[in-house]
Amino acid sequence: MEVGVIGVDVGGTKMTAGLYREEIVKLLRVQVDRGAGAEGGFKVICDMLVDLFNEARLRGFSVERIGVGFGGPVDFESGVVYLSHHVRGWENFPLRDELERRFGVSVVVDNDANAGALGEWVFGAGRGIDDLIYVNIGTGIGSGVISGGRLVRGWRNLAGEIGHMTVKLDGPVCSCGRRGCLESLASGSAIGREGSERFGRAMRSEEIFELALEGNAIARQILFEVIDSLAFAIGAAVNLFNPRKVILGGGVAEVSESLLVEPLRERLSYYTLREVYEGLEVVRAELGYDAGVMGAIALAIVMF
Amino acid sequence: MEVGVIGVDVGGTKMTAGLYREEIVKLLRVQVDRGAGAEGGFKVICDMLVDLFNEARLRGFSVERIGVGFGGPVDFESGVVYLSHHVRGWENFPLRDELERRFGVSVVVDNDANAGALGEWVFGAGRGIDDLIYVNIGTGIGSGVISGGRLVRGWRNLAGEIGHMTVKLDGPVCSCGRRGCLESLASGSAIGREGSERFGRAMRSEEIFELALEGNAIARQILFEVIDSLAFAIGAAVNLFNPRKVILGGGVAEVSESLLVEPLRERLSYYTLREVYEGLEVVRAELGYDAGVMGAIALAIVMF
Repeated sequence: MEVGVIGVDVGGTKMTAGLYREEIVKLLRVQVDRGAGAEGGFKVICDMLVDLFNEARLRGFSVERIGVGFGGPVDFESGVVYLSHHVRGWENFPLRDELERRFGVSVVVDNDANAGALGEWVFGAGRGIDDLIYVNIGTGIGSGVISGGRLVRGWRNLAGEIGHMTVKLDGPVCSCGRRGCLESLASGSAIGREGSERFGRAMRSEEIFELALEGNAIARQILFEVIDSLAFAIGAAVNLFNPRKVILGGGVAEVSESLLVEPLRERLSYYTLREVYEGLEVVRAELGYDAGVMGAIALAIVMF
Repeated sequence: MEVGVIGVDVGGTKMTAGLYREEIVKLLRVQVDRGAGAEGGFKVICDMLVDLFNEARLRGFSVERIGVGFGGPVDFESGVVYLSHHVRGWENFPLRDELERRFGVSVVVDNDANAGALGEWVFGAGRGIDDLIYVNIGTGIGSGVISGGRLVRGWRNLAGEIGHMTVKLDGPVCSCGRRGCLESLASGSAIGREGSERFGRAMRSEEIFELALEGNAIARQILFEVIDSLAFAIGAAVNLFNPRKVILGGGVAEVSESLLVEPLRERLSYYTLREVYEGLEVVRAELGYDAGVMGAIALAIVMF
């Protein structure tokens, strides 16, 4: 193509931006102090964009559009951020309009779960699949759903909140204040917390996966419970959306197939109607570490 | 309009067809013996259609399209019935093509839950609301979802199976063979079964609702548990779809507001993320007894 696009992934403490023209031709990644707030974060975004616009000019093409995947709820219609759960100052920030005013190109802003789903749909494990659920299992758990070739957004672009589906009424307290949400049982932080409790020392989820691979019984039991919670919630979503593929992304999903994806695929049969389970594929996301920025690029390409 | 449409609601033992032109100008309702199978049912459908085509001719207008809401899963693309859970012989029946061949007008066939959602969207409690969940609570429990002004169909038009979402791992055996599905806990038949067990005599759900209204403690406890199960499953759907309205249809939903709709609306706050619950409306369906045929008429009007 004669032109390129830019994708920006806005995290709590990490900003990533990529200039894309058939492939990512330049990628920038910047750590941001959480204390810098929305103001500091926005300044970093603008600096990265100036850099990438310059790069495009040097390479002799123009930037047609900017896609932004934001780590929190966004009003897609207006491009205004509702808030960030991690960084102060983003409440009602008109991110799209501010960027359009400064850079003079059209901008699309969405939450990072929707961007992640679009990324896998355009570039990854969801290519050619018009009915898919993308579940990101990392520090938190979010999902984006494509149904009939379109993102399911809901009334206020808040659809896909699988992380806050109740799984266990008497489960741990969740970041949202309620109890037993999927996120409180199966996120990376929840796995670490569970391991720390049962092993009696501070642990991260990665270590528990390693112990499970080595055959440690406690670690295997933790994983069994995590997979059961995931199957319960994803099974409900599968009954409701009838997807052809479930795509698992995020740090937790990057462990070996045999530890998470295969047992989850089997366990899903307990929680889904037979007709809906038939032919369902459960796979890992393909985009890995750059999923965020690839999702933002997909937003810029698809959502106009 | 110069032309009319026909809607046909195909149930297990009851067929309803309506000729529609600004309103229903003629309605036919026929009981069918379950033993007559698909063959017998199809003959009744055709007889009703001949009658309604004649009626249209007498009134001086033509029939433009036929919509059929079928009580079981349907492949929307091809108009072929997958099967009926109640009547033998419907497996892979090419209902759309058979009707088009006989009557020479275009035909749209969908499952009755999708038709019900469209009916409320076009004629009922969902007018003007592009993000809604319609839940039909009768002998079984089904749902149809409209998101961004479009039916959510899923890969094989099997989306919306809220009735088979697992709510209680150790719950009663469901018609689908698994345990603790919403349908096994909160459908009309489940309420009747629960009452029969606790009161020690055969009961129907209607009687339990009456007793609850009179203040009977056992009946109220049964209802509390039913509402909790509904809130659990509908809450999951609300987190996933972010609808503006939840519309409750079917026989069970026709009891007084104070007994079901109001407590359910409150209970939903336990199972939904605060941002998603904010502004959510929970209402009864408006179409009542003729919901099936109005849904089929909506199919004929909207789905072309």
